[in-house]
Amino acid sequence: MQASLDAALNPASVAIIGASDNPHKVGGRPLLYLQRYGYRGAIYPINPARSSVQGLRAFARIADTPQVPDLAIIAIAGDEAVGAVEACAARGVKVAVVMTSGFAETGEAGARAQARMAAAARGGGMRLIGPNCQGLANFATGMVANFSTIFHELEGRDGPVAIVSQSGANSQAIYALLREKGMSARHVHATGNEADVTVADLAAAVVGDEGVRLVLVYMEAIKDPPTLAAAAARAHARALPILALKAGRTASGQRAASSHTGALATEDRVVDAFFERCGIWRAADPQELVRAAELYVGAHRPHGRRLAFVSNSGASCVMAADQAERQGIPLAPISASAKERLRRALPAFAALDNPIDVTGALLSDSGLLGAVLPIIGDDAQTDLLLIALPVAGAGYDVPRFARDLAQFQQTYPITSAAAAPQAAVRQAFADAGIATFAREGEAMDALAQLADHAALLRRAPPAPLVRIALRGKPRFLSEAESLALIAQAGLPVIEHRLCRDEGELERALEALGADIVLKACSPDLPHKSDHGLVAIGAADPRAEFRRQRERCLALGARFDGVIAARRARGGRELALGARLDPHFGPVLLVGDGGIYLEALKDYRLLLAPCTEDEVAAKLGELRIAPLLGALRGQPPRDVRALARMAVKLGEALIAWDGEVAAVDLNPVMVFDTGAIALDALVEKC
Amino acid sequence: MQASLDAALNPASVAIIGASDNPHKVGGRPLLYLQRYGYRGAIYPINPARSSVQGLRAFARIADTPQVPDLAIIAIAGDEAVGAVEACAARGVKVAVVMTSGFAETGEAGARAQARMAAAARGGGMRLIGPNCQGLANFATGMVANFSTIFHELEGRDGPVAIVSQSGANSQAIYALLREKGMSARHVHATGNEADVTVADLAAAVVGDEGVRLVLVYMEAIKDPPTLAAAAARAHARALPILALKAGRTASGQRAASSHTGALATEDRVVDAFFERCGIWRAADPQELVRAAELYVGAHRPHGRRLAFVSNSGASCVMAADQAERQGIPLAPISASAKERLRRALPAFAALDNPIDVTGALLSDSGLLGAVLPIIGDDAQTDLLLIALPVAGAGYDVPRFARDLAQFQQTYPITSAAAAPQAAVRQAFADAGIATFAREGEAMDALAQLADHAALLRRAPPAPLVRIALRGKPRFLSEAESLALIAQAGLPVIEHRLCRDEGELERALEALGADIVLKACSPDLPHKSDHGLVAIGAADPRAEFRRQRERCLALGARFDGVIAARRARGGRELALGARLDPHFGPVLLVGDGGIYLEALKDYRLLLAPCTEDEVAAKLGELRIAPLLGALRGQPPRDVRALARMAVKLGEALIAWDGEVAAVDLNPVMVFDTGAIALDALVEKC
Repeated sequence: MQASLDAALNPASVAIIGASDNPHKVGGRPLLYLQRYGYRGAIYPINPARSSVQGLRAFARIADTPQVPDLAIIAIAGDEAVGAVEACAARGVKVAVVMTSGFAETGEAGARAQARMAAAARGGGMRLIGPNCQGLANFATGMVANFSTIFHELEGRDGPVAIVSQSGANSQAIYALLREKGMSARHVHATGNEADVTVADLAAAVVGDEGVRLVLVYMEAIKDPPTLAAAAARAHARALPILALKAGRTASGQRAASSHTGALATEDRVVDAFFERCGIWRAADPQELVRAAELYVGAHRPHGRRLAFVSNSGASCVMAADQAERQGIPLAPISASAKERLRRALPAFAALDNPIDVTGALLSDSGLLGAVLPIIGDDAQTDLLLIALPVAGAGYDVPRFARDLAQFQQTYPITSAAAAPQAAVRQAFADAGIATFAREGEAMDALAQLADHAALLRRAPPAPLVRIALRGKPRFLSEAESLALIAQAGLPVIEHRLCRDEGELERALEALGADIVLKACSPDLPHKSDHGLVAIGAADPRAEFRRQRERCLALGARFDGVIAARRARGGRELALGARLDPHFGPVLLVGDGGIYLEALKDYRLLLAPCTEDEVAAKLGELRIAPLLGALRGQPPRDVRALARMAVKLGEALIAWDGEVAAVDLNPVMVFDTGAIALDALVEKC
Repeated sequence: MQASLDAALNPASVAIIGASDNPHKVGGRPLLYLQRYGYRGAIYPINPARSSVQGLRAFARIADTPQVPDLAIIAIAGDEAVGAVEACAARGVKVAVVMTSGFAETGEAGARAQARMAAAARGGGMRLIGPNCQGLANFATGMVANFSTIFHELEGRDGPVAIVSQSGANSQAIYALLREKGMSARHVHATGNEADVTVADLAAAVVGDEGVRLVLVYMEAIKDPPTLAAAAARAHARALPILALKAGRTASGQRAASSHTGALATEDRVVDAFFERCGIWRAADPQELVRAAELYVGAHRPHGRRLAFVSNSGASCVMAADQAERQGIPLAPISASAKERLRRALPAFAALDNPIDVTGALLSDSGLLGAVLPIIGDDAQTDLLLIALPVAGAGYDVPRFARDLAQFQQTYPITSAAAAPQAAVRQAFADAGIATFAREGEAMDALAQLADHAALLRRAPPAPLVRIALRGKPRFLSEAESLALIAQAGLPVIEHRLCRDEGELERALEALGADIVLKACSPDLPHKSDHGLVAIGAADPRAEFRRQRERCLALGARFDGVIAARRARGGRELALGARLDPHFGPVLLVGDGGIYLEALKDYRLLLAPCTEDEVAAKLGELRIAPLLGALRGQPPRDVRALARMAVKLGEALIAWDGEVAAVDLNPVMVFDTGAIALDALVEKC
């Protein structure tokens, strides 16, 4: 357990090592900002060459300050920064923010210097932020220990958002986008090289700030998933939304994977699974990270995602219907009685369905929105409402429209927003406390995102991350051993016999009949069909046995026998897999089976343990999901049976506690009733 | 052949019926605009109540003007507008622009009045724009016959873009977005109810204006595909790009479709196929319509889509790699020798691969971009280049960067752009003649779009649209008749015999052997398998024949016999279809076969006639495309054979000249060599 980061967010005093009189140098800007933004703690410029810096008394060394500073900013170059960290640690400083660059980001030598720095901090019980970082900023207290130019270009002010970013450039970009939306952030932290403190650590710290109502995170690697998961769990407890932009699609620390599930489950989709489990919404770029920010900090959290769209342009209504279809956003239904009320409120030729076109009549009848909105509200079939006014120049009573929407927003539990290309129109709505967007499509997506994220946050609190270390180097079991282990774990497997010799084959034929599959069994040949070692319905099973044995031996592989398995028919072949991920713990895979799995990559991942419902939901997201339902007279497939198998497999992987690295069950045949593994491949230590 | 629209774009004189002294009324604004924007032709206000309007001599009636006006704007209410159209037609006016609303958009009565208006225009050989339209605007001549407020809010000026929109609100929105990008439009036309002149007509007209370098089109229905196709062909001849936003995903005039191909091919994807054939790029929303406008009117048309990304932020580079992967944009390779040059130009720790991170060193070394860019240019492996500067505040020599990029753009045949969140940074690049973007991802997408559209425009000129009327009401042929017709057209079909009685079955068994499929043949049962009338490898073919005959008769269907077909094995089942679309002519469908076709909708459409290459390209876009290549030791499928069948089917459908409405070949089995139709269903008149 490392020291808390309270002193990073709320230090009682701050020292700046390398303090500069030039407010636009790295060592000068924090001094400028601390004073400008009203930091009330003691500020100690450290500069051996001067008696005062930017009007404050300076000290020659960190050891000279009248009290031990809680936080020290280090802004001196190269190796001197390592010495400064050592001095801070010796002095009892709680947190050092090392802005100096030239460490791990420059190569081996820099990495070694960084390691020395980290060791010095650790030795002194001091937390280290950076090196190569832009620093911290807390606008609640004016503690802006940061050299970003953005707080000079945009006057900082307190707000309900926390930004935590590995990259300084991106913390700035995200902050600027937020300000463009008329919002602001309390916390803006950049962690740089993360020799000690990671984005996850600071996310955990800001989640503890009751004033924060939205957390935006940027990172290129999830260095500490359990800490981020714990932060997310704390945020979940107070319904605080976290959005993350995780860039870099090559999964970090990817183990050379020999099993299929291994290869597929180490890619970026594991990160998706991790975020989903944590209730964290994943954004694709900085714009997506901030697009719904106003909605998040607004009052309502929608309980559904049915959208009503109201516009004075028919074209907007047509495009909104297209966008709803493209993005899978359900348009709210309108009851017959509400339509009757709409008919009376609107011009005779207006469309009475959703999207609702109030037509150009809005120009002459400024009360039209105020008449229509309560009808939608009373109808109680809408969760989200968007008013789009692409045409609203001179002659339109926009302030009245804004008041009507604000009134609606206070009366009904419906999350509302307004879209207009004209800045002045948006401003009128913003002044009335309404979230605004320049683009209609973006507004619809943001509303739907809010609803989806709210649903994620209403789920049961996320279980802590289970991380299990492998107990050794994993090797493939033979198929017979694999099937046995799976059956032991309580999963249904196809009826089969391992026939080590022809005598055993005879007894298997007696027991199973002729409608069987014969498969050579060898731990050296995990992918049998690639070697022609699978025979379905062989006419002469005895000859096939001998052929497979000879082929096996010719390949130089061990020959454990031939598996005779009952032939399964009439189901759909899916794939089920599991593996221990070194970062995220047990990962489950469900997907389309057979060779399709790797060729078409139609699969989903989940972190175990998980529930049957969660697995069923993932199966519903597959592209082939329509094939699992009722189809041309064929009854639906028993996806619940597969979901139960997945839950059990996840539990087993945890219970095996590092003995088993990975399991492939491909195919699992899913019938109208029940499901059964036809093939198994286990990697065991 | 209707009268030309030259007078719509360049009238020698304009009358305004319902001219108002109030410049902000519908009848006043065109007068305001015509004068403000320097229209040099004669202007005739028509207003029986006044001797002058807005300082110009007014006339009581259209008949009173000293010369016949080329164009008349009609801005008087209701039925009077119909009378005005009649008067204009009688006077010999060439084009009437009817702004008055209250016609087809309001219901039946309005539609009848509109029809009267259209008939009057047609009778007088006059073209009619509207009613319910915002009007025309040509900033080359100041002929702004338009009542949109936008030309009051934004000072109009001539530009290289033409906007043609059904919706007035959207013409305005698109124009405003363009102006936000610092660009302008020469033509801004809105067609409203399109009683006569459609978006396609005006698109054809603006394509003839040599000053136009980009055409942006908005429409909710493609009312006249041949005219739009002809306009696109003319634009193609001078490499003039057309972009279209076609809203409204329900295909217009959809015929109740009974065949599978029919049902699938009437949806919105037929519009995609039409646009692709015409070389028209389809945008999803107004923002996408304008996002690449600067690039389109720039000098270079890229010959490939390999992108180089250069930034001073490591985070931007990571996000760019993600975006490239998501959007399938290839990152340009960098040769070893170029890397060596980069190594010498960049700081020791900079990444030498693409995306190229020039690092924060750009702050201290303003010549860095100028050093890096020629290395990329000389390497000649790049088609598109994006410079992203997310951090470029005080201290950065942005004008120098802009000069360096402008110099690069003049030296190398590489299409370039710059992305920066800060408006001032963008302005510096824009001043140097470079296309700029606020968002890096949007810039990448725009560059890739330009390259893709350029490739589309380099194709052979599009063939004219073939529209063929059905010769009657189509009915299903039986399978035997269907297979015969297909075989006659030169497509390979599975070897089969129609067995009308058991004697014929015996002879078929002798000829084909026992490994056959038996299928009842009846024109009344197009979907045999739904009725259990397909038997694969029946143990007792004679009994099966009798069973199918009985089942057929029990269903009350005609019984033509049982088809005995050789059983095909070892290929992949795909689907091939064709139908006559009433709007777009012969449409071909290729897709995943069997029940998958309808359940998963993994198919593509093309307009016939088309080439083998075009069909093969569409097959390559299928989700299941990886299954058609070499896979786990299986050789690739002969997709060329299927493509040849598709080309032939298209030719046949044209040659049948309205006798055949639709053909389903599902499945077609595609082997390692060759392909063959296993099933056929033809709808014939």
